[in-house]
Amino acid sequence: MSESPLIDDRARPPDAPKQAVAENEAASVDGPLTEEFVRAVAEAIDEGRADEVRTRCEELHPSDFAQLLTFLDETQRERLIVFVGGTLDSEVLVELDPDIRESVITAMRPEKVAEAVADLDTDDAAFLLEDLDEDVRDEILAEVPHAERLALNAALDYEEETAGRLMQREVFAAPGYWTVGQIIDLMRGSDDLPDRFYEIFVVDPVFLKTRREKRIDEIMTKGELRLIPVTMDQEEVAYLFEHYNLISAPVVDGDERLVGMITVDDVVEIVHEETHEDMLALGGVEADEGLSSTVVETAQSRFSWLAVNLGTAILASLVISMFDAAISQIVALAVLMPIVASMGGNAGTQTLTVAVRALATKDLTAANAVRIIWRETLVGGLNGVMFAVIMGVLAGLWYFATTGAQEESVKLGVVVGVAMIVNLVAAGLAGILVPLGLQRAGADPAVSSAVFVTTVTDVVGFFVFLGLAALVLL
Amino acid sequence: MSESPLIDDRARPPDAPKQAVAENEAASVDGPLTEEFVRAVAEAIDEGRADEVRTRCEELHPSDFAQLLTFLDETQRERLIVFVGGTLDSEVLVELDPDIRESVITAMRPEKVAEAVADLDTDDAAFLLEDLDEDVRDEILAEVPHAERLALNAALDYEEETAGRLMQREVFAAPGYWTVGQIIDLMRGSDDLPDRFYEIFVVDPVFLKTRREKRIDEIMTKGELRLIPVTMDQEEVAYLFEHYNLISAPVVDGDERLVGMITVDDVVEIVHEETHEDMLALGGVEADEGLSSTVVETAQSRFSWLAVNLGTAILASLVISMFDAAISQIVALAVLMPIVASMGGNAGTQTLTVAVRALATKDLTAANAVRIIWRETLVGGLNGVMFAVIMGVLAGLWYFATTGAQEESVKLGVVVGVAMIVNLVAAGLAGILVPLGLQRAGADPAVSSAVFVTTVTDVVGFFVFLGLAALVLL
Repeated sequence: MSESPLIDDRARPPDAPKQAVAENEAASVDGPLTEEFVRAVAEAIDEGRADEVRTRCEELHPSDFAQLLTFLDETQRERLIVFVGGTLDSEVLVELDPDIRESVITAMRPEKVAEAVADLDTDDAAFLLEDLDEDVRDEILAEVPHAERLALNAALDYEEETAGRLMQREVFAAPGYWTVGQIIDLMRGSDDLPDRFYEIFVVDPVFLKTRREKRIDEIMTKGELRLIPVTMDQEEVAYLFEHYNLISAPVVDGDERLVGMITVDDVVEIVHEETHEDMLALGGVEADEGLSSTVVETAQSRFSWLAVNLGTAILASLVISMFDAAISQIVALAVLMPIVASMGGNAGTQTLTVAVRALATKDLTAANAVRIIWRETLVGGLNGVMFAVIMGVLAGLWYFATTGAQEESVKLGVVVGVAMIVNLVAAGLAGILVPLGLQRAGADPAVSSAVFVTTVTDVVGFFVFLGLAALVLL
Repeated sequence: MSESPLIDDRARPPDAPKQAVAENEAASVDGPLTEEFVRAVAEAIDEGRADEVRTRCEELHPSDFAQLLTFLDETQRERLIVFVGGTLDSEVLVELDPDIRESVITAMRPEKVAEAVADLDTDDAAFLLEDLDEDVRDEILAEVPHAERLALNAALDYEEETAGRLMQREVFAAPGYWTVGQIIDLMRGSDDLPDRFYEIFVVDPVFLKTRREKRIDEIMTKGELRLIPVTMDQEEVAYLFEHYNLISAPVVDGDERLVGMITVDDVVEIVHEETHEDMLALGGVEADEGLSSTVVETAQSRFSWLAVNLGTAILASLVISMFDAAISQIVALAVLMPIVASMGGNAGTQTLTVAVRALATKDLTAANAVRIIWRETLVGGLNGVMFAVIMGVLAGLWYFATTGAQEESVKLGVVVGVAMIVNLVAAGLAGILVPLGLQRAGADPAVSSAVFVTTVTDVVGFFVFLGLAALVLL
């Protein structure tokens, strides 16, 4: 933990960092895509000043260029692609929003795409091709050089979102009886090393600090190696990297032969993607919806979730309609009933959100499910009592103020309170049991839990409140 | 992209991966913490079989041991700590749930904690100490050796959740006129190299492939270096790593002097944490709530959000109570009104979820806000029309079936339809304008957006539906 002696000023030229800053002004916190920059580029595109557009864009990092495309409208986007034409970096295609990527690739000539594909790492190239229509993909693949095509087809043979798609196939492997010197010499002699490799053998500083005569198996770390089956889901891969703080891990096939390697930088994106997928699913949005989808696409993709919600809402309404006689006698019930249902819905969403996260991080498993279910019931009960008192008193006072009926006011307050307790306990139970049940049934607990939970809290809320009121007050 | 010649079988001993698998059986997909394992450990703890507990736990990875602790109840946890005693890995403390960590550290003797702290990297040690009470922390720091204490105090001087806390201070820097050979020799001679370093100089394979006589500045890559200010928020750091696919980045202070380095493996956790924070915030849960919080703590932390929601629900009820005369005449209004409000709430949540994600990934900025607001309005309008037709027809038919009043049924259907369109447009607008407004005001758009959006959709839904009904039907 102590400071390295190497950081002292003898070893660090004092001007080095300043120089680097001057060279990197674009790397400010806001990034190069300021509002003014985007507006200026958009204007230049609209007015057809191709040279200006090219000059402004040529300094952009591929990731920023990809993001610039999402900020433009469709016509501007197409024009920009035409303007930069052959100079489009293949990395830009990888970084693009899926919707835009498809339209950009379709607009490019197949041999141009093939060039970009051949230029990329196999995993990125496969990622680029996986979402395309079969015939578009075949047309592009036909233009890719033979060796690259073989590697690509092999990668595409693995299922989407598995380790096989994520891994890089370029692995450096050497038998344990080789010496450090042999490996360094081999690496010096090779033109075709993987772009990045951290651990498997080479990157451990111990390696560089080790005398050339040492055998590899004398210095390699054992036991900490986590093997990743090539068919493992990418979410699981991300979990392993995060849980065990891995830097890289070897990927093996069904016969336990080394077929590739996954490095932590491939995983950052997956962690982000999978967590956002859970968040979107809880919000009732499909994972592939982006800001670049068209209005009709977006409306369509949201329609189905809203339709399911309509079903739930109608079910709740049927419960209400069972008590229409009570409501027509005491309109206050109609005024108060959404409060009980809404509190249940929110408490259920809280529990559900925590449960979905805990399932993703494996903090909630069969090993502690019973304890957590019990905990959520207690939390629901405790907050139920608190809000029963608050809302019971408020409802009673309000009813007394409007009607002057003392006995009914007390009864209504008690009914509100009891309904609140029951519904918050139901919310806690549903919030934990629904995702657990879905997970056990093999479904994604993030995707459909919310609708089940709010169905429970709406139905229980309306039924208990109106039912009790009908019993006690009529 | 082509296969490396190094992967062929001459260089790879065919038995190597199989051997590795045999050594790594614990690394199965489910991990070592199966239900049976946890139950067996819990039983052994309950029955005081300390030796068995130690034997079962000694093979566990620190991350798994930390997770095991979250699966146990409080008494079991304390006993387990006593049983493993001095053999507790310092990494376990880092991996623990914050709630549990505090109780474990408080239970340990300060000099034991100080030992663990001195054992860790500065960033991990600071992370361990940052949440502790001032006096507990000072007691521990007093036991830490002088050099480590200085480094730790320096780290703790940076604000929590900034680059200064994330970075490792152990950086290897050398002037550009040095040769590859000089650096390798220096590294061989040093005992105190950073644990991990990837890029700044050394890990690029080019380095290892380069002849010892080459000068560093002839082989280093320029321009791609992103400097990170030491005060930068960790969310921003994670964004830069993800957006620019960084492996590591130098951290500089206000005078642009190199003070440390952040590597991608530090960022994986942050990406996960920040995204989950957004997800929890949208679900109305505080970020620090874990499954290990007690029932009372959990109930308390959720209470405040539910209280805010109660305010919203009461506001919506006040709107309903404005129309109690209409409801007492036509009870059907009470039955139908939650449907309009609920559809608005769900549509608003959809838009809000997408907006919060887009703000986090900077896909939604001032540069495209107007276009996205317009898009969400159209999406709301489009789905509004769809559900207006569906629900208008259903409501009309249902009312006709129950009352036989043809004209009123048509009118009611039209009222439902118009209210649905207005509320879904309001939902789209609120779903995008609320997070944008909060972000512009400097607030976290994930934390308080949901309550504003549902307030809008509840109030608009009830007001438009009941108001129109009162106008048209009475």
